[in-house]
Parts: sequence; structure tokens; C-alpha cells
Amino acid sequence: MASISRTIFFVSGSTAITAETMGQSLLSQFDGIEFDQVTLPFIDSYKKAIRVYQQINRDTEQRGIKPIVFSTLIDTDIRQMIKNSHCIFFDLIETFIGRLESELHKESSHTIGHRHRLLNDGFYDLRMHAMNYALDTDDGISTKNYDQADIVLVGVSRTSKTPTCVYMGMQFGIHAANYPLTEENFQPNKAFPQLLKPFRDKLYGLTINPERLHRIRSERLPNSRYSSLHQCQIELSQAEILFTEENIPFLNVTFMSVEEIASTIMLECNLHRHVL
Amino acid sequence: MASISRTIFFVSGSTAITAETMGQSLLSQFDGIEFDQVTLPFIDSYKKAIRVYQQINRDTEQRGIKPIVFSTLIDTDIRQMIKNSHCIFFDLIETFIGRLESELHKESSHTIGHRHRLLNDGFYDLRMHAMNYALDTDDGISTKNYDQADIVLVGVSRTSKTPTCVYMGMQFGIHAANYPLTEENFQPNKAFPQLLKPFRDKLYGLTINPERLHRIRSERLPNSRYSSLHQCQIELSQAEILFTEENIPFLNVTFMSVEEIASTIMLECNLHRHVL
Repeated sequence: MASISRTIFFVSGSTAITAETMGQSLLSQFDGIEFDQVTLPFIDSYKKAIRVYQQINRDTEQRGIKPIVFSTLIDTDIRQMIKNSHCIFFDLIETFIGRLESELHKESSHTIGHRHRLLNDGFYDLRMHAMNYALDTDDGISTKNYDQADIVLVGVSRTSKTPTCVYMGMQFGIHAANYPLTEENFQPNKAFPQLLKPFRDKLYGLTINPERLHRIRSERLPNSRYSSLHQCQIELSQAEILFTEENIPFLNVTFMSVEEIASTIMLECNLHRHVL
Repeated sequence: MASISRTIFFVSGSTAITAETMGQSLLSQFDGIEFDQVTLPFIDSYKKAIRVYQQINRDTEQRGIKPIVFSTLIDTDIRQMIKNSHCIFFDLIETFIGRLESELHKESSHTIGHRHRLLNDGFYDLRMHAMNYALDTDDGISTKNYDQADIVLVGVSRTSKTPTCVYMGMQFGIHAANYPLTEENFQPNKAFPQLLKPFRDKLYGLTINPERLHRIRSERLPNSRYSSLHQCQIELSQAEILFTEENIPFLNVTFMSVEEIASTIMLECNLHRHVL
């Protein structure tokens, strides 16, 4: 019975992103089990709820085992409907709401997730602005707006600068620019890039192990000078010398995801996500 | 007492992104209350846990009210340490783990969040690839890789095409390209862009209300022809005619966040996030 691939449903009245994020975190504690995952966002009417109810019951019948449902449904009737289906129901929101209500001395609004709210607060505009900023200043395209930057990432090509900047904008509303270090910056007697000097306090370096960089670059341009291990070794060692000489804090991202890089930079540079 | 701005701590052994996402979802049910939010990621040693314990107790003393802690801590000792501080402790993971264990007939691994896991599974590489794909094909820069696309968004300038593509790559591992519709595409007798024809099944249109587009464009280029209400009206009406004539499904994004646009497209186009 336990060896049958089991279905996981993420059900929400809104985007289902919270249900997925929480559900994935919980499931990541159970390595080696395979699941079929189904996301059901925008379940915001009784009619849609009935369809989900039927879909879950059909799944139970077909597989002979109840699926697991991670729900962030807020609407009482819709939630109750899904809860009554043949499933193992994890109520990610309601489980905590009662205790939060008594703690905050306030009733919850029982409105559907972030819907509209996301758009209406200034944080959304800020996040979009920050993300566009990351794209507009990507790869040193434009350095004229560096005074707006919360942080400027520097590093050689393919050290996760761009995805980290975009992620920091999207997730935290942080304005992150990035500037690529190229061979020019490493020539003997070549000074530290003049245009970065006024922004020295905002600079943060990224580095990576040469073997890993070699593999990443090889996917992009195989068998090139750019992707050769030798070239990666030279660029990285010179970048690290430059970081050290110029007192730029830096991070080795070899074993880090973009989420981990971004969170680490936030912490080390004492940056704060702009609050909702 | 209740009017004092209260502290919310998001505490995690990893990035704290799950704790923030869930905490924000819960707090969004209590409109009108102000909170001071503090994120404490990478609490992965007893030494760091002691510092958090002290920080929470100090906060309680200073404000005269216990802060609320949203925790995704997995390590038993560290979790217990924080739980013993003077706080209202919401245990987002452990609350559900026991029931999941008995349901899955397996003990949880009690490892720290997604740490390393994120990097080690193929999903991470896919997400990064998809995000780079969105950037490489942005704004019609390169259309030669459209055969790799899961979807190609089309629409006039500033209809959220780029952030939606990047978000779909980052969050779902979906390869989303985007192609801008400009006045050229609307000239009388001008055919539908030839190069899009082979990819007709992947096309999805975005539109928006002219007043909103006018405001968005005005932030970028105020008092220009590009941002004038008249120009926005013309471009949008012609884009919608084109979508209708060419049978391209489309979405009005005026009141939608990027998360909502992305989730809606996933649903309508029957795209599935690549599973972890």
C-alpha cells in the first residue's frame, strides 16, 4: 500500500504559493518518497470546490489510498467541503488562526489570501520596481543609477549575480545591481574600476570554486577559452585578490542556492526586506 | 497594551523563506495591525540559538509584550531553546510532522530545511536554466530558441511580460519567453509576425486597461507619446483585435499581481510546475 505513488494536492483560494511552499518544506523531511503533486489555485467558489471534492474522491478510488491535501483555504464553506472529501487534510492556515486571534485580540478577516492585497500595498510596486531595477542595471549595462542601489554585487561571469539580484528584488524589494569583473579589471597596474569607487560601501563580492564555474560555463560555451578550467582559476583568484585588497566582503556560493545566497547577503549586509 | 507595535520573529535553520511566506499569509488575515518584523535565518547552531533566545527576551522586556515567533526550526534542541524564551511560539513544521509521519509510515529526517537539498536535485538547475532562458529571450531579443519555450507571452510594452516570465522560471521551472507587440505589428495589411507562426500553440496574450498602462508608462517616460493615454488606448485595442483574430488566449492583468498572473497562466495553459 505504502509503495503506491501518492497524490499531494495543494489547494488555495488564491495562487496556492503559500500552500506549495509550506507543503514542500514539510515533504522535504521525508526523503525517498515519490509523490504526484497537483496544484489547485483560485478555488474561490462553491462550484469549483465541488469539482475539487470530486477530483479528490476519484483519486482515492483510483489509487486505493487517500491523498494528502495541503490547504490554505480561508472561506469556511469551501474549506469544509474539501475537508469532507476522502483525504488527509492539513489545514495550514486555520490550524493557527484561533490562537493568533486570541493573542492579537482581534478576529481574522477570513478574506481570500493575498488577493488584491498584494497589489494594493506599496510593497508590490516596490518589488516590481526593484526587479525592473535589477534587469535595467544587469551586468553593468547601466551604472548611472547606482546611487539608488541597496547593494551592488561584483564577481566574474556566472557566479549567480543576476539571479540573485532579480530574486532579491522580487522577494525582498531590495534594489540590487551587479557589475561583472572581466580580465580588464585584472590587468597589472589597472586600478579598481573607477566608477565603482563612490559606491564602495555597497559592494559585495561573489566567488565560486573553479571546478564548479568550469562546469557552469561549459554548459553555456563548451570547449572555449571562457569555460576552460585554467581561465576560471585565473579569473577567480584575481577576483579574490581584488576583493581582499579593496576590503570588499565576499561569499563563496559553490554550495548555495540563490535563495541561500540572497538570505545570507541580507543578513551580512544588514539589509531588511521592506515590510508588507 | 494591544496598541503597542509588536515584534514578529521569523526563525529558521535555513533561509526563513517558508517561515516568512506562511507568517505573512497568517498576518494578512489581520488587517490594520502594525508589526515590526525581524527575520532570523540560518539559526543552525546552539550558540546562535542562545543569541536568538536572548534577543527575544530582550524584546519582551523592552515592549512589555511577548513577540510572536513563526518558526520552521527542525533541530529539536534549537527549537526547544527558542520555545523556552518569552514568546508566543508558532511551530509551523513540527505542528504537522507527527501526523505526516504516521500517515506516511516513515520518520521524518529532521534535517535542516531545504539546505543543500535545493542544490542537489535537478529542479534547482531547471529553475536557474528557466530563469536564464527568460532573461536571454526577454523582449524578443532572441527568438531562435522558441522551440524550447513552454510558453511565449505576447503583449504591448509594460504589460508585466518580463516579470511574469522570470517569476515562472524561478518559481515553477517553466521556460517562458516573451515577444513585444509594437506599432509595426499593427500597421494595416501587416500580417501577424511571421516568426511567431510556428509557435502559435504556445502564444498567450497579456492586456491591461489603458488608464493603468498610461500610469505605468508615465513613471518610466513621463509626458511622452509612448506614455500618453491616447497611445495606450490605440496599442491595446489593436493588440486585443490581434489576439481575437489570431485565436490567441489572453488575460487582462489590470488588477493582478505577477504571482496571480503566473498562477492563472499555469492553470489555463495546463502547465505544471516541475516537481521537486
